[in-house]
Amino acid sequence: MQISELSLTTGVPLATVKFYIREGLLAPGRRTAARRAEYDGNHVQRLRLVRSLVEVAGLSLSTVRRVLAAADDPAESVNGAIDVAQSALPPFAPEDIDTTAAMAVIDDLGWSIDPSCVALKQLASAIASLQSANADVSPATLSEYGRAVHPLAVREVNAIPSASQEAAVRYVVLGTLFYEPVLLALRRLAQQDAAT
Amino acid sequence: MQISELSLTTGVPLATVKFYIREGLLAPGRRTAARRAEYDGNHVQRLRLVRSLVEVAGLSLSTVRRVLAAADDPAESVNGAIDVAQSALPPFAPEDIDTTAAMAVIDDLGWSIDPSCVALKQLASAIASLQSANADVSPATLSEYGRAVHPLAVREVNAIPSASQEAAVRYVVLGTLFYEPVLLALRRLAQQDAAT
Repeated sequence: MQISELSLTTGVPLATVKFYIREGLLAPGRRTAARRAEYDGNHVQRLRLVRSLVEVAGLSLSTVRRVLAAADDPAESVNGAIDVAQSALPPFAPEDIDTTAAMAVIDDLGWSIDPSCVALKQLASAIASLQSANADVSPATLSEYGRAVHPLAVREVNAIPSASQEAAVRYVVLGTLFYEPVLLALRRLAQQDAAT
Repeated sequence: MQISELSLTTGVPLATVKFYIREGLLAPGRRTAARRAEYDGNHVQRLRLVRSLVEVAGLSLSTVRRVLAAADDPAESVNGAIDVAQSALPPFAPEDIDTTAAMAVIDDLGWSIDPSCVALKQLASAIASLQSANADVSPATLSEYGRAVHPLAVREVNAIPSASQEAAVRYVVLGTLFYEPVLLALRRLAQQDAAT
């Protein structure tokens, strides 16, 4: 298809499609003549992903670039896809953070976690903030939060499409970005209900 | 006590204490002489709250002002304290957002929620983003997230101190700010575990 049809199919304005190509978020079409290029189904899929990330999730162009690099990274497992997707998204914890306290929570939960995964560093960073505020950071308390969300994660992981790495990363990224606000809003509402 | 002792007691540098007073985040002491003012236990408590919000939670001065106004607002119930604390914190959803879809989830959960509370608007806003991304927003799916976090909320609400409105708001604000990152990091880790 031509670029005008790509724009019509996806509902993304032509100027925006051209902007994404200039910014390197979408590959240029296959050139078929001096002023003609051909686009295909892969362009449609990628354009829809870019648009969700930019317009719906409101990510910055640099974060979108990280997510796309993750989608293109040939990880060989679902775990790999999850980790690259999670690495591309905020919050960005310090690389060298001490994960001892976080690992104690994971041990209490009995989970099987790669000690180098980025989500473990995020947990370590969250625990460090709790410690600065003199809050309860005992593994027994924190693991209750883990036990509460584990059944949700099992359902989410079972729903990850296995067709392609891009599809899997897209699913994890959008699931993370869009369901996290739901989870937080419902926790706040649950507090309201519990107080009634 | 004098301002120097207030600084020593809380570990907040003198220049920072003066800055908070100038910014209206901490009340000035009771003037006892031309160049002397007297501070008390209320100042110590308030200064610790301001410091947690600014330094640990990393809130902007304008958000800190909202939280402090909430702490001083004479709400008469725990629900009131929770709502004023939640209203003071991001994310800030549009006032006039349609909460029909959010209320359908609450009905599915059988929760008792004030339809004007701010967390319901946050849920409505999260659902609107899901809809734009063509994600599953059926009440049956979303209420699973609510059921998962409800036991955590019950425990959190039972732990809210009833001594004063300030203490209750402080507890809810810090609990919201500091446990939300824990919950999100653990959900991501649960996905890793579930995928193994």
